Amino acid sequence: MATVKLIEYEEACADVRQIYDDIMHTKETDWINNFWKALAVQPDLLRRTWEGVKDVMTSGVLDPLTKEMIYIAVSTANGCTYCINSHTAAARLKGMTDEMVSELMAIIGMANQTNALANGLQIEVDSAFRAGGLK
Amino acid sequence: MATVKLIEYEEACADVRQIYDDIMHTKETDWINNFWKALAVQPDLLRRTWEGVKDVMTSGVLDPLTKEMIYIAVSTANGCTYCINSHTAAARLKGMTDEMVSELMAIIGMANQTNALANGLQIEVDSAFRAGGLK
Amino acid sequence: MATVKLIEYEEACADVRQIYDDIMHTKETDWINNFWKALAVQPDLLRRTWEGVKDVMTSGVLDPLTKEMIYIAVSTANGCTYCINSHTAAARLKGMTDEMVSELMAIIGMANQTNALANGLQIEVDSAFRAGGLK
Amino acid sequence: MATVKLIEYEEACADVRQIYDDIMHTKETDWINNFWKALAVQPDLLRRTWEGVKDVMTSGVLDPLTKEMIYIAVSTANGCTYCINSHTAAARLKGMTDEMVSELMAIIGMANQTNALANGLQIEVDSAFRAGGLK
Amino acid sequence: MATVKLIEYEEACADVRQIYDDIMHTKETDWINNFWKALAVQPDLLRRTWEGVKDVMTSGVLDPLTKEMIYIAVSTANGCTYCINSHTAAARLKGMTDEMVSELMAIIGMANQTNALANGLQIEVDSAFRAGGLK
Amino acid sequence: MATVKLIEYEEACADVRQIYDDIMHTKETDWINNFWKALAVQPDLLRRTWEGVKDVMTSGVLDPLTKEMIYIAVSTANGCTYCINSHTAAARLKGMTDEMVSELMAIIGMANQTNALANGLQIEVDSAFRAGGLK
Repeated sequence: MATVKLIEYEEACADVRQIYDDIMHTKETDWINNFWKALAVQPDLLRRTWEGVKDVMTSGVLDPLTKEMIYIAVSTANGCTYCINSHTAAARLKGMTDEMVSELMAIIGMANQTNALANGLQIEVDSAFRAGGLK
Repeated sequence: MATVKLIEYEEACADVRQIYDDIMHTKETDWINNFWKALAVQPDLLRRTWEGVKDVMTSGVLDPLTKEMIYIAVSTANGCTYCINSHTAAARLKGMTDEMVSELMAIIGMANQTNALANGLQIEVDSAFRAGGLK
Repeated sequence: MATVKLIEYEEACADVRQIYDDIMHTKETDWINNFWKALAVQPDLLRRTWEGVKDVMTSGVLDPLTKEMIYIAVSTANGCTYCINSHTAAARLKGMTDEMVSELMAIIGMANQTNALANGLQIEVDSAFRAGGLK
Repeated sequence: MATVKLIEYEEACADVRQIYDDIMHTKETDWINNFWKALAVQPDLLRRTWEGVKDVMTSGVLDPLTKEMIYIAVSTANGCTYCINSHTAAARLKGMTDEMVSELMAIIGMANQTNALANGLQIEVDSAFRAGGLK
Repeated sequence: MATVKLIEYEEACADVRQIYDDIMHTKETDWINNFWKALAVQPDLLRRTWEGVKDVMTSGVLDPLTKEMIYIAVSTANGCTYCINSHTAAARLKGMTDEMVSELMAIIGMANQTNALANGLQIEVDSAFRAGGLK
Repeated sequence: MATVKLIEYEEACADVRQIYDDIMHTKETDWINNFWKALAVQPDLLRRTWEGVKDVMTSGVLDPLTKEMIYIAVSTANGCTYCINSHTAAARLKGMTDEMVSELMAIIGMANQTNALANGLQIEVDSAFRAGGLK
């Protein structure tokens, strides 16, 4: 149970309804998920977050499915149940197959493992890698 | 400075040399980075980790650059300096442009933000999302 | 379900009861929450933890509500469901309004985002900031 | 060394300069810190992030110093060196004393400890706390 | 509810059944837990993960119970509910008493606290400690 | 560089000196490491933290070296450079060999990997594991 009241469309103020309409239009759906209903307690937070997500997830050089998988990777590393579920559902809609889930999870798992080894052994970054980022 | 001795090629035992050779051959390079030199203290750990990374990163339905970006996403969420640097260098070699870095970071940043909002407000997963994963 | 037995007041030893009494007296309440009942498996752990929390949360230059919000911020970053819920309830009792929750979450979300950007891009600390802490 | 080029004011495009000017004007300073110079690789990311930070950190019911301390708390839990340093410097400018730093750290430390205990023992949220968030 | 289908023994292919048999034989049990059933969507991921876990957890200079407690410590720091529960159950089978749980949790809690203090105050590593790792 | 002044023995007040003396006596050493010098800005924080660490790390059913390895495991999962270095040095003094480091790291790495897989796939805890903790 969320720690704030979820704002339903019917009880929302005009500003919030406008954002809800844009969310449903952009996602081609007819319902609002709990995440947005919780943010609607503060319309500014709702607007800023939605506009950020819309900008980041719907345009650019990376394709939408790749973006969803990156989102799942971060949400998994952070252990965020809500975002893992919502973005897995979104990725499925965009064509993520079981095989892609498995590869995605294998990479996430391997990265977590080597992150721990590199941190735990305090391994210094090779100078070639530091230089590589900017040449 | 690593908390274990880094094993150089010249001083490595035959088992470790064989893995080092495979690393250099697979990566088409002529040097071994510190990560593997630190794991070489225990040849079994070196072999298992290298074989895992090789399997996960070099075959599959996801392309190699997408895999590197997912790796960077996890390493960023975990704050692993070594892996961020090494996989950013690897991704650059595979064609990651500045524009792709920016989009990748924008997604990572947005995911971290919404992860925090979803956790902080204890938002429940919508039933539609839970169902979505398995249909 | 906790991985240790929760110790109820009735079955607690005298040492534990004394701490339970102090918890209820300090919080002006007549019940013990699960957190303390779980720690009571080891009275020393219970005592040390409770005395630490009491010292840290009930005295000082920062006011009690600010302290609760800082506690929520850390618990959110760590994804601890129990502590998010218990300290949100405590903060509500101390006067946290919906507007304050929203601002708190906005800061937590923004901090998580910029933390990720700063780590992901491996941005070096400006010398002015390093110096700033100690002048 | 950052994994992208830092954009100095002199070489920035007009869009970026305008944001840099707003950053310096808002912060009442005459220099741009590395964080913004790194984001400037993608002007949209720079603009969205700056506008988010400005909105979140400079207005509202919570005072600016409290906001900085919450920012430090999150950055500490996430282990983000850059943000810990930059927001500690900002908080010092806004009046954070050594005593406040110590109390802040004591709360952060205590929260991390109890987060671990609650997670490690898998303690269930008391129903009174769940209810408390919404009444 | 997992985001992939759990593969039961009856419906598993021969490769997966062989691994399931090895899991049950190694653990001296007659059932497969959900973790392996989820990985079985991709037999390679299942095999690599199981072989890794088997190698790491069942041989070596550290005794099996110590290994389980280290596993619980990491899982607690990462907030992984599944792994905390499964490895606590495993550790109980290997003889972990309530007193050991309490000591384990006390260490985990204390480490989380001092990790936060060291990060939050940006304390530099003493040269004696850096040297100590390699002499 | 720490964000607070490090308090040297010579300039410390009597309360702090007494704690410093106890630290050196307990550790059988003749110097104070930076961690304690930073906490000394607030003698109460120093005393509470030191007493907690001393209690947790020096007595009990788990042996001191096992305790240090658990500490390293948590610090690695949290990415705390200071604590990884200081507790690795402490563990070395207590007899941790290269082989033990390697096994410790292998467990930490494996736990991080399976934590990610369990979270990322949202695998439900088996009822047998939930029951196992409390029988």
